[in-house]
Amino acid sequence: MAFIYWRTIHFQETDAAGVMYFANLLSLCHEAYEASLAEAGVDLKRFFASSSEVAVPIVHAEADFYQPLFCGDAITIALTPRQLNPQSFEVTYTITTQSANNAANNAEEEGQKLLAKALTRHVCVSLRAGAALPDRAVDSPAENRRRRVLTTVLVDWIEGLAEQADL
Amino acid sequence: MAFIYWRTIHFQETDAAGVMYFANLLSLCHEAYEASLAEAGVDLKRFFASSSEVAVPIVHAEADFYQPLFCGDAITIALTPRQLNPQSFEVTYTITTQSANNAANNAEEEGQKLLAKALTRHVCVSLRAGAALPDRAVDSPAENRRRRVLTTVLVDWIEGLAEQADL
Amino acid sequence: MAFIYWRTIHFQETDAAGVMYFANLLSLCHEAYEASLAEAGVDLKRFFASSSEVAVPIVHAEADFYQPLFCGDAITIALTPRQLNPQSFEVTYTITTQSANNAANNAEEEGQKLLAKALTRHVCVSLRAGAALPDRAVDSPAENRRRRVLTTVLVDWIEGLAEQADL
Amino acid sequence: MAFIYWRTIHFQETDAAGVMYFANLLSLCHEAYEASLAEAGVDLKRFFASSSEVAVPIVHAEADFYQPLFCGDAITIALTPRQLNPQSFEVTYTITTQSANNAANNAEEEGQKLLAKALTRHVCVSLRAGAALPDRAVDSPAENRRRRVLTTVLVDWIEGLAEQADL
Repeated sequence: MAFIYWRTIHFQETDAAGVMYFANLLSLCHEAYEASLAEAGVDLKRFFASSSEVAVPIVHAEADFYQPLFCGDAITIALTPRQLNPQSFEVTYTITTQSANNAANNAEEEGQKLLAKALTRHVCVSLRAGAALPDRAVDSPAENRRRRVLTTVLVDWIEGLAEQADL
Repeated sequence: MAFIYWRTIHFQETDAAGVMYFANLLSLCHEAYEASLAEAGVDLKRFFASSSEVAVPIVHAEADFYQPLFCGDAITIALTPRQLNPQSFEVTYTITTQSANNAANNAEEEGQKLLAKALTRHVCVSLRAGAALPDRAVDSPAENRRRRVLTTVLVDWIEGLAEQADL
Repeated sequence: MAFIYWRTIHFQETDAAGVMYFANLLSLCHEAYEASLAEAGVDLKRFFASSSEVAVPIVHAEADFYQPLFCGDAITIALTPRQLNPQSFEVTYTITTQSANNAANNAEEEGQKLLAKALTRHVCVSLRAGAALPDRAVDSPAENRRRRVLTTVLVDWIEGLAEQADL
Repeated sequence: MAFIYWRTIHFQETDAAGVMYFANLLSLCHEAYEASLAEAGVDLKRFFASSSEVAVPIVHAEADFYQPLFCGDAITIALTPRQLNPQSFEVTYTITTQSANNAANNAEEEGQKLLAKALTRHVCVSLRAGAALPDRAVDSPAENRRRRVLTTVLVDWIEGLAEQADL
């Protein structure tokens, strides 16, 4: 079973065309990713800090938009991570309307309407000591970011959601 | 009793200094305002639409920041509206840490730490037919926006929260 | 020749990991798209208004990230539109560092480093009278948005940039 | 003479009411502040990094909104810093329409219309070694942030703009 995240579209996320600004969909998906990590016990403050020795930058993102979203719309984001190779994983997101029943039983409902889909691809990199210092980063940011195997925390998170899928 | 809104700080809301970007505090406060209106039965989609005949633009906003906020921090926003005159009202926001007890009893806790305060001042204006059309707005946006008395919906919302305060 | 847009990364666009938040790349690309339309004489206020009879929503977006971007970084976005069929077009974006020479000769420099690539796919839709009104939109937003051929303005904009490429 | 910053309102900055979302005004002002520091030779990447030993957080911000701003609107932000005491300074921002002449002569024009005003108040703090590490920050973020006198860079920046005012 995918991790499920509920969300209401905020006024700030809309634009003068009257609907949600397209790029905000990816931010909503990242929120769902954060919520999923937090539920798995990850300390978000440390996980996303520049002083961390490991980072998990997004190297690819994409989204398909099927329906406009309006301020106040209640949506559901179903998130599923999948390991691609020892150093990287991807997360797929299915964004649907919240059915009345959905909030009650935490399950995917047939009555839900598909609004959008998205995907993010992440790689795990080691930040060498001082890599977060802007001055060194200027010289060769890439050099300071060497791919490494996924941390145990990430592997556990991916497998945790996969196991739930097997039930 | 103020309207209470819970929120977690998202990664997107942080900046390279490692803490929440200052202006995002006002967006969080506006989210609380939206949630409060929605709970009072307001249809946010219509309320905030450019095709509406009435708008309630913010004419003044301010914020005081006492503590940095980090990604993943759980905060509480306590919101209190107050009518200033027939055409306008202001909303004050008190942002505190979420105490462990807080989620349980929906009440303000002594153990909470004050993080920030904010205020927004709103006026009610009539949008003349076509005022939302950009071409007319270009000529004289102000002329198309005449102050008017607060709508019943807004007065009810303000009084509803005031009454709760008297209990 | 592609349309060229210069930009500096703002503090707000960075996150606690010390670099630009990934989804902001797509917003930067949309800014370049807006600047390109404006240069071709498009009135952005009307073009993007909900009261417009035609809208050009993004139905697909994707991005590849090769290098982290830091606050203050000066970047160049080279934008190229291409018509896909009578009703839709796509825009590709190549994001590179600004070389010292670049500002001078508006040309792509060998010294530039590739930072990211992005793509947005747009369809042209007719908004039926009242389609922008939230209440109708609620019932069936899709029904109110029928695909139509690209407007002359858009075709001219696409061809204008294509012609420049032939020079 | 104040530091002058030109800007066009982007589509992303508007909301479903058809105008610029209020809190974005403060972000625009911060952009002007960044541009002003950069022009004075400040390395923004280092200045705003969490690994810096000194930070200049905003402790108060406020804004007054006189006119709605639309997508594509060309605005001017005139910024003036002023030292308040040895440890803090404030910046005032005057936001006006760009007159046709303005771009040409970099001066304040009589024909400009006042759109908004804003103010930010900043304090200079020392970040003790490791203060940027989230784990220590959790325990007592305030303790790690002791007020200190403004850095030479900031004093020079403030005086540089003041001197220009005397010309």
